Amino acid sequence: MTDLPSRVDITEEGPREGFQIEPGPIPTADKIALIDALSATGARRIQVASFVNPKIVPGWADAEAVVAGFTPRAGVEYTALWFNAAGLGRVQGFAGRLAVQGSITVTGSEAFTKKNLNRSHAEQLEAQRKHVATHQAASVPMNRVSLQAAFGCNYSGAVPAAQAMAALHDAMRLAAETGCSIEKISLADSMGWANPALVERLVGAVREAYPAQKISLHLHDTRGLGIACAAAGLRLGVSMFDAAVAGLGGCPFAGHPGAPGNIATEELVFLCEEMGVATGIDLDALIEAAKLAERIVGHRLPSNLLRSGGLAAFRRAA
Amino acid sequence: MTDLPSRVDITEEGPREGFQIEPGPIPTADKIALIDALSATGARRIQVASFVNPKIVPGWADAEAVVAGFTPRAGVEYTALWFNAAGLGRVQGFAGRLAVQGSITVTGSEAFTKKNLNRSHAEQLEAQRKHVATHQAASVPMNRVSLQAAFGCNYSGAVPAAQAMAALHDAMRLAAETGCSIEKISLADSMGWANPALVERLVGAVREAYPAQKISLHLHDTRGLGIACAAAGLRLGVSMFDAAVAGLGGCPFAGHPGAPGNIATEELVFLCEEMGVATGIDLDALIEAAKLAERIVGHRLPSNLLRSGGLAAFRRAA
Repeated sequence: MTDLPSRVDITEEGPREGFQIEPGPIPTADKIALIDALSATGARRIQVASFVNPKIVPGWADAEAVVAGFTPRAGVEYTALWFNAAGLGRVQGFAGRLAVQGSITVTGSEAFTKKNLNRSHAEQLEAQRKHVATHQAASVPMNRVSLQAAFGCNYSGAVPAAQAMAALHDAMRLAAETGCSIEKISLADSMGWANPALVERLVGAVREAYPAQKISLHLHDTRGLGIACAAAGLRLGVSMFDAAVAGLGGCPFAGHPGAPGNIATEELVFLCEEMGVATGIDLDALIEAAKLAERIVGHRLPSNLLRSGGLAAFRRAA
Repeated sequence: MTDLPSRVDITEEGPREGFQIEPGPIPTADKIALIDALSATGARRIQVASFVNPKIVPGWADAEAVVAGFTPRAGVEYTALWFNAAGLGRVQGFAGRLAVQGSITVTGSEAFTKKNLNRSHAEQLEAQRKHVATHQAASVPMNRVSLQAAFGCNYSGAVPAAQAMAALHDAMRLAAETGCSIEKISLADSMGWANPALVERLVGAVREAYPAQKISLHLHDTRGLGIACAAAGLRLGVSMFDAAVAGLGGCPFAGHPGAPGNIATEELVFLCEEMGVATGIDLDALIEAAKLAERIVGHRLPSNLLRSGGLAAFRRAA
């Protein structure tokens, strides 16, 4: 385990991912309470809202109210999600409270792009070129590339590493052509196709091609392998992860009713800390935040650690 | 991933572990139905019952009826659990239906032995010496050593590898002294303290000390790291695992109400098969058996894959 990073940066996506997928409306005050509970755990980056069309995602019709309502904590970077100029405009109204950075997004599967966005890969690249221009005109740093469906796709099957890399190369070329200085490459297992061997292969290929960029893993626990994939990434020195407290969220894509979403933040923190990788997060406080998330949604969430608790109490008693 | 085994042997422990911990009585016919569903998946070893004192474990008062009732399938080894001469006597009544093999059991934590068995480590070794004699007198092969609490203990904290190895050495010495030919060393994370780094360390130490024995991992998913620990074992070439369909079972030890038990067999099979490690098990049939297990117990079981399904259908449609 010699390549383990000494420290990881975790982006907490629970509030944004989780409250988007819940069937019932979640009170704005509850969303704010969870964000504030998370910022008190030592989390350094929290995605707090989604500035998307409320007609399409009614669960985030209150994005403005949530962002206006949380209590900013020093040292915590609050982020949001948006997809177009309208969303960017709304987000920029909160430039003092939100860290506004843009991404170039491509997918490893053209079928996924077609299904989700009704665009070919080439059309998506053109759309991203405009997306970059919009953000640059608004002086928003474009410093990340996100590769969705990096390991496989429910519509087209396995995504070989060469295919994923081809899509990534297109995005990195676009970034270079448009003068974006990419700091972070995010590999997203959008539909739960990854396994530890695939993570090793793709992370290795990305690192070889782009040694100057940090790699981030966005892993879904759709089929139970999320934390094993995270461990495979850690083993290779990956030091950036997305996760969702309590395993909030789900998978909105075909064929996965009731499947879980992102890996649970507290299980990732536990994995890291038990192996000596610092997270900066207080696990017991995070477990309390996970319990709060479960109370808010009113049903059982996927995290196991949420129920069993960490080992600190046993160590103290031993 | 060069040390991945080409094939793994999985012992299915769901029927025995799961029906022991469920609060309500499970009809004998349901237990038998699950065993027969599992044997139809390609499983090669199924632990079907526990011959323990029905006053202590009322859920297994029907052990005889279950073992008499399942339909033996060629190529499947059916096993049972027992702890003493009375249990052995009951098991031996089914010598034609059950594979009867004994284990020497020690723990990595004396506090655990004290709490569970009210014995010191030295007393447990003496008890195991008598246990061996009882089995040898009954011509039962004693070919396994099981190390419980191999990674940590709720009563005494972390179990360093040196401490675990000391307990294992004692058991192996006892085996040598009593003429037992040990083929398999089982490392059990009884209370959910393992992580991938600890698995690497202990598996490495065991393999160095006992290169002639096969190593088996018995992993609990108490804190969500079970499958990551399994992946760490696979990576080192471990080729024997225990698992429980649907994640049936739980943790009967202090401080874990509601925590899950063994890793889910279907998630382990999925992990293996996706990485090219053969299991001999038909994943889709196993997922159906997992759904049957959930119907039998009447509540949600921990497996994620049970809800999301495997990738075969998506690959066929792609």
